[in-house]
Amino acid sequence: MVRENTHIKEKLLEVGASLFCEHGYHGTGIQEIVDALSVPKGSFYNYFKSKEDFAAEIVRHYADHVSEIWNVLVAKESDDDPLTMLRNVFELMIRSQEASPVKTGCLIGNLAGELAESSELCRGTLQSVTTDWCARVACHLERAQVQGTVRRDVEADELARFCWDAWEGSLLRMKIENSTEPIRHCVSLLFDVFLKP
Amino acid sequence: MVRENTHIKEKLLEVGASLFCEHGYHGTGIQEIVDALSVPKGSFYNYFKSKEDFAAEIVRHYADHVSEIWNVLVAKESDDDPLTMLRNVFELMIRSQEASPVKTGCLIGNLAGELAESSELCRGTLQSVTTDWCARVACHLERAQVQGTVRRDVEADELARFCWDAWEGSLLRMKIENSTEPIRHCVSLLFDVFLKP
Repeated sequence: MVRENTHIKEKLLEVGASLFCEHGYHGTGIQEIVDALSVPKGSFYNYFKSKEDFAAEIVRHYADHVSEIWNVLVAKESDDDPLTMLRNVFELMIRSQEASPVKTGCLIGNLAGELAESSELCRGTLQSVTTDWCARVACHLERAQVQGTVRRDVEADELARFCWDAWEGSLLRMKIENSTEPIRHCVSLLFDVFLKP
Repeated sequence: MVRENTHIKEKLLEVGASLFCEHGYHGTGIQEIVDALSVPKGSFYNYFKSKEDFAAEIVRHYADHVSEIWNVLVAKESDDDPLTMLRNVFELMIRSQEASPVKTGCLIGNLAGELAESSELCRGTLQSVTTDWCARVACHLERAQVQGTVRRDVEADELARFCWDAWEGSLLRMKIENSTEPIRHCVSLLFDVFLKP
């Protein structure tokens, strides 16, 4: 029963993430989420206090999923080449958007635009996962700076936050242009031009 | 009467833009918009076919407003210095966010995240105004390249789209961190580091 509960909760988070990405937080009803899984609406409230609480858990769950992908890629990293590893992460994210029939973009960025003003709980969670993401990128950029493959006139943590900004903005442009060209273009400029020493 | 109608339509667009920025498209009801102006709900439909049509008009109206600000700044530009003029535009946008009690960010970016997937009408309008914005920035960057104040190893239109990406991403981070530090930081890196020859 514990396993089944975990399974349902996990499924609710996954379906919620997907629908929030596509139609936004306010554009997605709890009814729609439970219907997609054929579970009664009441059971939703066994797992989550409110829709807002659900959204905050989705953000954490999504960030955990992204972390797992990173960990796999870091483990695979060969020749101690942090810059190539970082680029591989971005290339993987590009391919994931290319493979998706709908250009959903990034859940974090989409919810930031829609919810950061109206939900302090969600804003706090978004801030926590964004800070973690930037710290992770900064750590690899700093190693690349020591190796001399990344410019050293800007601190690694500043570069990391700038990468976040450019990447998230390019995902918005991907949605606007209904094409993955903006994200390819952004990653190419970051790695081939702006991060270079 | 014509003037009054124009006035009401204009007011509906302004209040709608402000509420969409703060609570998102789906998080804002038409009732809320008409209540804010004390006009009957029926009159909304004298001006707009649907909420979706209203959103597309808001995007165009917002872009026109941004264009007017640009025109004033371009007219004021002294010493034929397009790079300083561009920076002044960004500084003005930063001060506008700093002066605002709520960190609403950019209507275009917020609606892109929420609506581009679900409304082809809004996506098309967002694409049109974003293309115009980038073309305008590219024109000034190209002049700066000729003057030698901006790097020439990347085409001006590519640089302009990259500026859009970085700026829009930093606005999302501003909302997430509830601070204008991310947008100040982004503009400083763009103009002091990445655009430099």
